[in-house]
Amino acid sequence: MSSDISPLAPKNHPVLPALDGVRIQAVEAGIKYKGRTDLMVMVFDRPAQVAGVFTSSKCPSAPVDLCRKNLTGGIGRVLVVNSGNANAFTGLKGANAANETAKAAAAAAGCDASEVFLASTGVIGEPLMADKFSGLLAGMVEQAKADRWMDAAKAIMTTDTYPKVATRAVKIGGNTFVINGIAKGAGMIAPDMATMLSFIATDAAIAAPVLQAMLADSVGPTFNSVTVDSDTSTSDTVLMFATGSDGMITDPSDSTLVDFKSALASLMEELAIKIVRDGEGARKQVEIKITGAASDKAAKIIAQSIANSPLVKTAIAGEDANWGRVVMAVGKAGEEADRDKLAIWFGDVRVAVDGERDPAYSEQAAAQVMKNDEIIIRVELGIGNGQARMWTCDLTKAYVEINGDYRS
Amino acid sequence: MSSDISPLAPKNHPVLPALDGVRIQAVEAGIKYKGRTDLMVMVFDRPAQVAGVFTSSKCPSAPVDLCRKNLTGGIGRVLVVNSGNANAFTGLKGANAANETAKAAAAAAGCDASEVFLASTGVIGEPLMADKFSGLLAGMVEQAKADRWMDAAKAIMTTDTYPKVATRAVKIGGNTFVINGIAKGAGMIAPDMATMLSFIATDAAIAAPVLQAMLADSVGPTFNSVTVDSDTSTSDTVLMFATGSDGMITDPSDSTLVDFKSALASLMEELAIKIVRDGEGARKQVEIKITGAASDKAAKIIAQSIANSPLVKTAIAGEDANWGRVVMAVGKAGEEADRDKLAIWFGDVRVAVDGERDPAYSEQAAAQVMKNDEIIIRVELGIGNGQARMWTCDLTKAYVEINGDYRS
Repeated sequence: MSSDISPLAPKNHPVLPALDGVRIQAVEAGIKYKGRTDLMVMVFDRPAQVAGVFTSSKCPSAPVDLCRKNLTGGIGRVLVVNSGNANAFTGLKGANAANETAKAAAAAAGCDASEVFLASTGVIGEPLMADKFSGLLAGMVEQAKADRWMDAAKAIMTTDTYPKVATRAVKIGGNTFVINGIAKGAGMIAPDMATMLSFIATDAAIAAPVLQAMLADSVGPTFNSVTVDSDTSTSDTVLMFATGSDGMITDPSDSTLVDFKSALASLMEELAIKIVRDGEGARKQVEIKITGAASDKAAKIIAQSIANSPLVKTAIAGEDANWGRVVMAVGKAGEEADRDKLAIWFGDVRVAVDGERDPAYSEQAAAQVMKNDEIIIRVELGIGNGQARMWTCDLTKAYVEINGDYRS
Repeated sequence: MSSDISPLAPKNHPVLPALDGVRIQAVEAGIKYKGRTDLMVMVFDRPAQVAGVFTSSKCPSAPVDLCRKNLTGGIGRVLVVNSGNANAFTGLKGANAANETAKAAAAAAGCDASEVFLASTGVIGEPLMADKFSGLLAGMVEQAKADRWMDAAKAIMTTDTYPKVATRAVKIGGNTFVINGIAKGAGMIAPDMATMLSFIATDAAIAAPVLQAMLADSVGPTFNSVTVDSDTSTSDTVLMFATGSDGMITDPSDSTLVDFKSALASLMEELAIKIVRDGEGARKQVEIKITGAASDKAAKIIAQSIANSPLVKTAIAGEDANWGRVVMAVGKAGEEADRDKLAIWFGDVRVAVDGERDPAYSEQAAAQVMKNDEIIIRVELGIGNGQARMWTCDLTKAYVEINGDYRS
């Protein structure tokens, strides 16, 4: 938790309502941080349906291994999340620590260890001492209350400068349900650095395979469409729990889920953008919109190339409408592009068209756009119908400072 | 040309000998810079055999298009390079400017326009006014002299803080030949920013297809193994000319070329490392060595992932032996890796082994390594025999400053 709150922080946080079937408790376990909560449990007194999406890293953390294994059962009874230590690259000790935590949580919640889900974020490579906090779990499960979503969002923060919460009310058939979600910082790792974690719950009755299909569908255009620095954590985790049991929906194409799906996607987009706006050192939110690519996949690769380019991101930090760097990033993406058909906009200002500077280009108008703290860069490739959207932030000296440590 | 010379600049520059069949002239054409040379011609009075390797960008510059076309003829008579304007993303105007320059150079050198090679580096998207300097070419060709390699290296600089030159003497059969090479800055583009350019010449008699095969072989482990910021210019160009004509070697597998091939590779490696050491804001040179990967290709992808990771590069800037970020970069590369078989060294200090922190790890010993201005990071994957090497530099606040412009 940094003392300087991001200038892009939301002015107000939504208030998350209590959600039937979910109880939460957060405490100060002193794993690494002092004077703040760093351990959170989310208890599902009735067995919840669970779905998950995890890091694509080939070196995942021990908690990710455990979640992947337990996900096959489809039932979640308790979620334990700690900040301050990622329990990643900790070898056999790390796997043991995860298993011990799961056992202690299972005993506390009166369930099987295979119904426990874990996430850890913080220092990498340091052994996580499970016995430092496993004794706290029984008391936490007992004292957990339904209206503590903001406490949960705060306990999982690392270098985040503000908690990330979102909520939706949505109808399935004639009944209204709630979706609550929390998240923490993206695209980073290691001492004091962040992993992307998000936990979502609903009181709707949706079977695990349906939940999994919806989560997997929505993660692409939301959490997987944000980038701070192109780096991928060993621990990235999105888990979703559904606590309802009456009239369980078991068909992924059930037409009553239409509104739910779009509410879930919108909640995940809100959390994803909140992560970008809290990117380390971020001063500007940037949306990259690609149209006219050969395919949606090509469009996403081009969008990523722009969103991850240090030269594009430093130019935005400098409020420089440097569209030449956007051309460069399109060119290096390796996807089909025709220089002479490209058009580029910064906000509403078209800066380039037909392979050269827009004849009507106004440096002043473009400079005005760059002063905003939310900037849209649009690239029309003029080749096909492929589209994609990515969100990123600028690359500032503060990013280098936060991540450089500058011990010397 | 920056006023602050990189702390990693060479203490002495090698003196490049005159090379039979090559004459050089550099002048102040005032294309953008003031008070420095910005236009260079290299004249080959006898038709030279020529080879070239270019940017993989899908949006190449007009001079790259022209070089690719003229390379099919295999003969070079004159090379014209300007700094200050990249003639990239300049549409039909750009192609016209390149053609006009080629015509003027052909007239000046008494050759065909198809025997002219061009490179431009500097601002992108600004029309290049060929008539601003095409009138100078005849005089330059006339006055060009053999012993001006350092002048050539200086004229092609943009944000480079020192000229990059290298030379080798090498035997083919019983005869000694010279290879001279010059280069300029890597991995960047756009206003005042750099493109990777290198021009190499030898007085050996080697036919264009053989030259092309050798150049293509050597570019992978040299110029294509350095990265400053992962960005790829629209204009990257390596051209090689051979001026000899007696006993022309026409077989790429000619055994008399063994020493020549290794001298060429070594010269290209020297130039490539000089580029990294002059990366924008660089304070440290970093070599990434991968061993034990599933294949050489997998090893290179993992090396690139580490070398381009902002989190690894900022940690190096901060002299932080943050091996967790190296694990992260291995994991995100997407190539086969087994967390529990990984070992990582910073210099001679093994920091991690068998999926966890080395039991003998000494923070102090690792910190000592990080103080050096040349750092080797080695990763052993323990899976196969694949190997790769990449060179990069650290990511400092100066990089953000140089590229951020900070107009506001």
